[in-house]
Amino acid sequence: MQPVNPSYADAVARIFDASTFTRDLGVELAGCGPGWCETTMAVSPRHLQQDGVVHAGVQATMADHTAGAAAGTLMPAGRIVLTIEFKVNLLRPASGDRLRCRADVLRPGKTVSVVESSVWARRDGEERLVAKATVTLAVTAPIA
Amino acid sequence: MQPVNPSYADAVARIFDASTFTRDLGVELAGCGPGWCETTMAVSPRHLQQDGVVHAGVQATMADHTAGAAAGTLMPAGRIVLTIEFKVNLLRPASGDRLRCRADVLRPGKTVSVVESSVWARRDGEERLVAKATVTLAVTAPIA
Amino acid sequence: MQPVNPSYADAVARIFDASTFTRDLGVELAGCGPGWCETTMAVSPRHLQQDGVVHAGVQATMADHTAGAAAGTLMPAGRIVLTIEFKVNLLRPASGDRLRCRADVLRPGKTVSVVESSVWARRDGEERLVAKATVTLAVTAPIA
Amino acid sequence: MQPVNPSYADAVARIFDASTFTRDLGVELAGCGPGWCETTMAVSPRHLQQDGVVHAGVQATMADHTAGAAAGTLMPAGRIVLTIEFKVNLLRPASGDRLRCRADVLRPGKTVSVVESSVWARRDGEERLVAKATVTLAVTAPIA
Repeated sequence: MQPVNPSYADAVARIFDASTFTRDLGVELAGCGPGWCETTMAVSPRHLQQDGVVHAGVQATMADHTAGAAAGTLMPAGRIVLTIEFKVNLLRPASGDRLRCRADVLRPGKTVSVVESSVWARRDGEERLVAKATVTLAVTAPIA
Repeated sequence: MQPVNPSYADAVARIFDASTFTRDLGVELAGCGPGWCETTMAVSPRHLQQDGVVHAGVQATMADHTAGAAAGTLMPAGRIVLTIEFKVNLLRPASGDRLRCRADVLRPGKTVSVVESSVWARRDGEERLVAKATVTLAVTAPIA
Repeated sequence: MQPVNPSYADAVARIFDASTFTRDLGVELAGCGPGWCETTMAVSPRHLQQDGVVHAGVQATMADHTAGAAAGTLMPAGRIVLTIEFKVNLLRPASGDRLRCRADVLRPGKTVSVVESSVWARRDGEERLVAKATVTLAVTAPIA
Repeated sequence: MQPVNPSYADAVARIFDASTFTRDLGVELAGCGPGWCETTMAVSPRHLQQDGVVHAGVQATMADHTAGAAAGTLMPAGRIVLTIEFKVNLLRPASGDRLRCRADVLRPGKTVSVVESSVWARRDGEERLVAKATVTLAVTAPIA
């Protein structure tokens, strides 16, 4: 896939700088390229749900946010993406010390982009796929 | 719908007490009954994404967590629910000072429950529907 | 909700006339108004899957098509809707002599509409909810 | 992935033989192995919707049915799978003379399986990805 904005990496970095919620959670940009993005997050007790595994909402947040950044790599300057909807399957209990998310654009579009995200949890040095999401985003002008 | 566990409200309260992530976000149990649950959350700057609206991940977290509690009201003692998957549509930009979520069980089941959640954002005293989710949960024994 | 095309009912009727697949299946327009549409289908052996219940694909087709018609009632003349994605939960085995589907627009939009569809199966004169879907549609000009 | 039923291919063939709806549509089993299944369907005018492309319901039917067969390859004798829910993104207008669907099990399970399906449309000898689905299935005993 071809980026139309040569400074796409700066645009993606700005998304992570400006997103208070994901910064507060500890979601970090690990890398990006045309049509993809990768993030990581160190797991801490605050991310857990009642049974001691990482809350589905944390996994969903990573899947959605990383998908938005992946779609963002293909945007022309001055266009942004906004999530219309997403669906996430929680495949296995997410326990471990680190989450990693990889998002790949499945269908880039002028008005709608579709992105797939996978989330892995690392435990005892080994990663296991814990969630898989499909994210639909609208391409639009910034709200202002 | 009929609860089979007369202490279902205690069971639901325990879910909220024990879930670190939603407590950390400020999600509060506002009420529950057989087949439904309602939560609220005061919006603060930490919940926002890059464009100043509440992050989709926060809305998804509320929708998923409240759905789990709604399904939990119908569980016998000693059975819990775990999210298998959910899908959420972000209908409008979520801005305001408070989110409210209401979840209703669409299909109670012995092995699988299906719940619908709606999220409203209150702004200038008026609530607007900002997200709608469908959540599929497995009925299971605690992981322990 | 307010229709902007006073001949919206004609536009919806044309969708049903021109859609070979749903006509072939026997999906019939039962009624429509601003923001909603209802359809019915007589169940015959050809609609079944291996275990004797109506195939999930038949239920999904009704849910999607009726949703498109519901969104269509709010379109201006010369604009059409195309399904971007949908998600359907199969709530109970669908057996009986007739399916009925009702679709309601949850969020009308200038570029994206979101619609919810419910499908009931009638058996021994009694209807049971068998499927629930959420459908996201793009508002666009006809392909040509 | 390892099949536990050595006659899994026979079990899958029976699913296709016994499913009236997909046989009526012309969906044919093209191949299967442990954790995957592939189908094809010759496109005819009866499969189309109002704008001349293959109806989303046809694509959804293939995606769901092929997913069920893929999950079926991993079932022990006497266990079947039933679709709980699926979500499908329609990525591009589906036009051409043939559809092909490939389904791969993402997460095999004792009670729940998750499968991904892709649908391609062939036009002028070239295949294009037109739909992508995620299907959640319950593992269960036959209904009767």
